[in-house]
Amino acid sequence: MRNPQLNAKGELQHLLTTEGLPRAILTSILDTAEPFTEVAEREVKKLPLLRGKSVFNLFFENSTRTRTTFEIAAKRLSADVINLNINTSSAAKGESLLDTVDNLAAMQADMFVVRHAASGAPHLIAEHLANTGKDHIHVINAGDGRHAHPTQGLLDMYTIRHYKREFTGLTVAIVGDVLHSRVARSQIHALTTLGVPEIRVIAPKTLLPSCVERLGVRVCHDIHEGLRGVDVVMMLRLQNERMQGALLPSPQEYFKSFGLTPERMALAKPDAIVMHPGPMNRGVEIDSAVADGPHAVILPQVTFGIAVRMAVMAMLAGVK
Amino acid sequence: MRNPQLNAKGELQHLLTTEGLPRAILTSILDTAEPFTEVAEREVKKLPLLRGKSVFNLFFENSTRTRTTFEIAAKRLSADVINLNINTSSAAKGESLLDTVDNLAAMQADMFVVRHAASGAPHLIAEHLANTGKDHIHVINAGDGRHAHPTQGLLDMYTIRHYKREFTGLTVAIVGDVLHSRVARSQIHALTTLGVPEIRVIAPKTLLPSCVERLGVRVCHDIHEGLRGVDVVMMLRLQNERMQGALLPSPQEYFKSFGLTPERMALAKPDAIVMHPGPMNRGVEIDSAVADGPHAVILPQVTFGIAVRMAVMAMLAGVK
Amino acid sequence: MRNPQLNAKGELQHLLTTEGLPRAILTSILDTAEPFTEVAEREVKKLPLLRGKSVFNLFFENSTRTRTTFEIAAKRLSADVINLNINTSSAAKGESLLDTVDNLAAMQADMFVVRHAASGAPHLIAEHLANTGKDHIHVINAGDGRHAHPTQGLLDMYTIRHYKREFTGLTVAIVGDVLHSRVARSQIHALTTLGVPEIRVIAPKTLLPSCVERLGVRVCHDIHEGLRGVDVVMMLRLQNERMQGALLPSPQEYFKSFGLTPERMALAKPDAIVMHPGPMNRGVEIDSAVADGPHAVILPQVTFGIAVRMAVMAMLAGVK
Repeated sequence: MRNPQLNAKGELQHLLTTEGLPRAILTSILDTAEPFTEVAEREVKKLPLLRGKSVFNLFFENSTRTRTTFEIAAKRLSADVINLNINTSSAAKGESLLDTVDNLAAMQADMFVVRHAASGAPHLIAEHLANTGKDHIHVINAGDGRHAHPTQGLLDMYTIRHYKREFTGLTVAIVGDVLHSRVARSQIHALTTLGVPEIRVIAPKTLLPSCVERLGVRVCHDIHEGLRGVDVVMMLRLQNERMQGALLPSPQEYFKSFGLTPERMALAKPDAIVMHPGPMNRGVEIDSAVADGPHAVILPQVTFGIAVRMAVMAMLAGVK
Repeated sequence: MRNPQLNAKGELQHLLTTEGLPRAILTSILDTAEPFTEVAEREVKKLPLLRGKSVFNLFFENSTRTRTTFEIAAKRLSADVINLNINTSSAAKGESLLDTVDNLAAMQADMFVVRHAASGAPHLIAEHLANTGKDHIHVINAGDGRHAHPTQGLLDMYTIRHYKREFTGLTVAIVGDVLHSRVARSQIHALTTLGVPEIRVIAPKTLLPSCVERLGVRVCHDIHEGLRGVDVVMMLRLQNERMQGALLPSPQEYFKSFGLTPERMALAKPDAIVMHPGPMNRGVEIDSAVADGPHAVILPQVTFGIAVRMAVMAMLAGVK
Repeated sequence: MRNPQLNAKGELQHLLTTEGLPRAILTSILDTAEPFTEVAEREVKKLPLLRGKSVFNLFFENSTRTRTTFEIAAKRLSADVINLNINTSSAAKGESLLDTVDNLAAMQADMFVVRHAASGAPHLIAEHLANTGKDHIHVINAGDGRHAHPTQGLLDMYTIRHYKREFTGLTVAIVGDVLHSRVARSQIHALTTLGVPEIRVIAPKTLLPSCVERLGVRVCHDIHEGLRGVDVVMMLRLQNERMQGALLPSPQEYFKSFGLTPERMALAKPDAIVMHPGPMNRGVEIDSAVADGPHAVILPQVTFGIAVRMAVMAMLAGVK
């Protein structure tokens, strides 16, 4: 069975998940992103690579932040961008996901950036496009359910490579609500493929998927043990909706046990970096002294994120 | 009294309704649309015809789907597009429709694409622009109340001409909720003007306007009788809000009496085409086997719709 | 302490308020706006001055009308425009204002157009950008709480200068809800700096700030006295939410005492002009006969508003 993200020549056709993406493709995305970081420094932040292409931001779940990063990336590549928030539109009229996709495909879309609450929706769309002879349209997963958020995973890899150069000697800790996190999944698959030898996940038992060890990670329920000697700390966002649930005693309790404080960061390597996908809950999963401190590379992540998204779009648009 | 859609030279000044549009204008729109279908196949789907023009999508009623088709059409013509959803804005502050129009006109708008729940709103706007010396601004009706949806009617004509070449020998059936349908009205006027000799409307009595025969159509309450020997079947959407009302027993009952099934399609000519303005209610007005079957030209309608909207915008922008 | 709107060379760095803006800067904005009014008359309403720049419309408070004017101004300058309505997004996820700003700054924003319900929010953003080494990003206040709405104030000055040529001999009346009006504050500061010798505010006591005289205005509780001999009448919008409150008896009562009628306008100079920031409450603060009458320059205000906003954006973008 062929990887649905690659075409017959093994080129990137869609970006659906970091799982199963060959190392060469991952590295190629990171390499392609490098010059795009310079575009953003220019007087005129604009390249003609997607001129005359129609990019649809297809958001079935609200996310201004993620939508904005894709919108900027596409506009800097000169694409025509159409934002669709589908909660309030055809979905309400009872049209099925695939009928919506068929319609937009018939409008000669070139690219769909898809955010959906259901895991697998972008896969389903990509498969449907293939079945209907429309696989010249590229799909980028902008986050689906608890499944994947591959551009976030990729920008995290870019950030790590930027600061640490090589993946092969690193110890990386992922801290927080791994259970509900599509970001964590995308990170773990990418880190593994890129050769990171030790990945730790740090979380209370209630916020870890069962059998998480099968992903090749080491589980730590104690943050002190987990942070000891790490090169990279990847924080996860604790979603507000979890905090009221039975999974967590209270935000204060969580911070006491798993919040990233300067004292805890002192256990990591002196040159360790701290990452966060945003938006942060200051005082819940992360102390402001860390978020704004010398280890944090949280804002560079955002900057690299634009370049990585431009790279993915440019690569996809270059594939015939 | 002059047709408010035409200027003194008889050129298209606004597109408000297909009613009363001369055959030469209708044909000219379809002819202009032809080359635009090819633009969409190009590597760079972009023409400079509306460069530096400001197109306002003025949606007083929510419709992501229709708004999207106009947004794409305008962007492919290089216009600056401004989307305004007026429910949530000035209307809420109590500003009148015409004050809103005056304001946008004062911002040097070039074109208003108007969707409004009230029949006649686009006419009112066009008239007001004339009265205030602003008739260089063009109005396109994107659907007003139960009155008209002329670009839908025109794309339907384009689709029929594409598949059937001539209008003069055709039998066309329109099936469904004619009573509430602006689409049906726009179709009937266009079909009549273009010379279709037999137009049938197929619906239960509760979903037909009184005296619908005056529009020059033949009424059939039995779908079997109505579909016999037709060249074109134009389905209408059964709006969810009607289904709860007294007008219909239930979606299931409706499907039993008026749903388009393969068995019923067998009564039409073997090369008949099936159209639908979308979004479809599969299993209510149309069986999926028909919607996805060999007679369906529902997705080509969408594609042609972009070209037709580009044609209308380009023609209007070319008029001084 | 340096004026936070000016850089070390005294050039306009941000536009936060008309208060304290030197007369030379005010005049320079008005002068720069003049040729932009002609751009709008051209066949192609487009200049390349902001090409490749990313302008973020950061609206923490809904305002389609104001957002639209900035969106058009930026697009006519060829900027990439990103609209963000923050009510429904990260703010809901509990992200702080400054974290949002940091993120957007990291996406290489060039300009923030900020509307916020809290007075001082744009100042806070500008200050934060300076503190984080991001002061190449320009902030334009598009209305903050009751504090300021400087582009409205500037377009009003443009309008007055257009019709009256000089400020130095004028008597100007501002009529209505001064207490809650950011527009009134921006007008008063600009009029004062530009040398208007007599500014009157006309309102019931309940709609005037205490000690309003300190702003250098003359208070009139009687509209007849206030309008006598004025050159310019600047109406304020009476916000619906006030009308239910204890501050006003009823819209009808208000109109009876303070509504601008043709009879009252007869007290002003024969060539007096009437302005209104919109949207108008016809029959509450202004009679339609005045709003649509010969003294009204309300729609030219809108037209000049686009040019003034283009001028401000172009000046800011030209500053290094």
